[in-house]
Amino acid sequence: MKNISEIKNIVILGAGSVATHLSHALNLNDYRIVQIYSRTSDSAEVLAMKTNSEYITDIDLLNKDADLYIVALKDSVVESLLIKIRVNGIVVHTSGTLPMEVLKKMSKRYGVFYPLQTFSKSRPIKFDHIPMCLEASDEQTLEAIRGVAVKLSDKIYDISSELRRYIHLAAVFSCNFSNFMYVAASDILKKHEISFDILIPLMREFFDKVTFMEPWEAQTGPAVREDHAVIDRHMLLLDEFPDFKEIYTAITKEIIKRKRNQN
Amino acid sequence: MKNISEIKNIVILGAGSVATHLSHALNLNDYRIVQIYSRTSDSAEVLAMKTNSEYITDIDLLNKDADLYIVALKDSVVESLLIKIRVNGIVVHTSGTLPMEVLKKMSKRYGVFYPLQTFSKSRPIKFDHIPMCLEASDEQTLEAIRGVAVKLSDKIYDISSELRRYIHLAAVFSCNFSNFMYVAASDILKKHEISFDILIPLMREFFDKVTFMEPWEAQTGPAVREDHAVIDRHMLLLDEFPDFKEIYTAITKEIIKRKRNQN
Repeated sequence: MKNISEIKNIVILGAGSVATHLSHALNLNDYRIVQIYSRTSDSAEVLAMKTNSEYITDIDLLNKDADLYIVALKDSVVESLLIKIRVNGIVVHTSGTLPMEVLKKMSKRYGVFYPLQTFSKSRPIKFDHIPMCLEASDEQTLEAIRGVAVKLSDKIYDISSELRRYIHLAAVFSCNFSNFMYVAASDILKKHEISFDILIPLMREFFDKVTFMEPWEAQTGPAVREDHAVIDRHMLLLDEFPDFKEIYTAITKEIIKRKRNQN
Repeated sequence: MKNISEIKNIVILGAGSVATHLSHALNLNDYRIVQIYSRTSDSAEVLAMKTNSEYITDIDLLNKDADLYIVALKDSVVESLLIKIRVNGIVVHTSGTLPMEVLKKMSKRYGVFYPLQTFSKSRPIKFDHIPMCLEASDEQTLEAIRGVAVKLSDKIYDISSELRRYIHLAAVFSCNFSNFMYVAASDILKKHEISFDILIPLMREFFDKVTFMEPWEAQTGPAVREDHAVIDRHMLLLDEFPDFKEIYTAITKEIIKRKRNQN
């Protein structure tokens, strides 16, 4: 077991959005990216050039002397790929859903280094306030990766694999599903040739509200008022949008139920 | 029919959030609020004081000489109350759902003056960029209320009662329902003693995305990837949150369906 008190040299496995943004942030904080691995050379080459490191597409050429290996690959390839690797450094993955233990065979010291954020390659993002969810096989490893995390962000959380699953589920509701509500709104307006822009100020105000009050306190609309006249009219309009009718019904039902249980 | 080329004196019917914010904005733009009507005196008194106007709680005392009457009452009371009123000025309501014609009996000149925003009395809000949805019984009336709207906001839309219904339905999805997705996320985290704050940066990034790309293009998550391993794990976790299981299923189903139809 290698004794790593301070992480200096880092290998990045992956060259997607997370790998790209993370590499840049590490670079900016004076970490040395010694190697980038990717199955395809295109994105790896770009990232290696930008971070002044080398890149490999053959996992057998992996540098074995780094302090930290950050696995930022798709969940589906992590397990099958990592089975081939043994290193002395610390290995972490950046996944919201994979348990920490998938890394067990790769090193004696392993953990999770999960930035709770969505990344697009084309959109720059500051790491300063991104919640970093950390977990590690042992206290010493946790301290070592925390040392890296605190350089990147001021929001560090110790989160077990167990809890991370709930955070991911909550993120699906609050981000993916709320986005799909925007999709529905956009469809409804588009069909009637109304610009989606008309809704943005209202949406922004609703979004801002949940940053300073409980979401349930901010709940408004016909369902929470049990305004059945409006709900019935909406159901009629939704005949034009059958894809969203079941969703409308399911959500309305739950809002009404919750309101009644509360009273 | 009174010939009103320029609106100067305004009566506000209602003393709730919309009435309050609108009165302040009108006041700031040198309109004279001559009277506030409310069924209860408390909020009417406060608002009358702030806007330097008088207030009434008896509708028979309504000032009949104003240029514009803005009805900012609950939908449910508008029709029953307004049947008692006849005025010469222009009458508009501020509702997202009521058809314009409910005002027909009140005056020969009527319309809709609908600020597409959510208002809380305690939270100050600028009118400058609030979309104002206008509709009127005739061209002259439309021009008169447009004259007021352009002083308040730089976003003026001509929206028929027909279209307004779709905007309201879209707002229910994009605001009320997306807020309920935040409620679900908040519940899930709370049960496991994780602060909702951990999700805010991610939620903000997702929100910002739809202001510059199509919502469907911004769609991510296990459903759009058809990642059934993750979906199945989520369904197991949702046994703890039965209230949200049906919603999870309905939305996931629609996202998958849409993705497939697109391919």
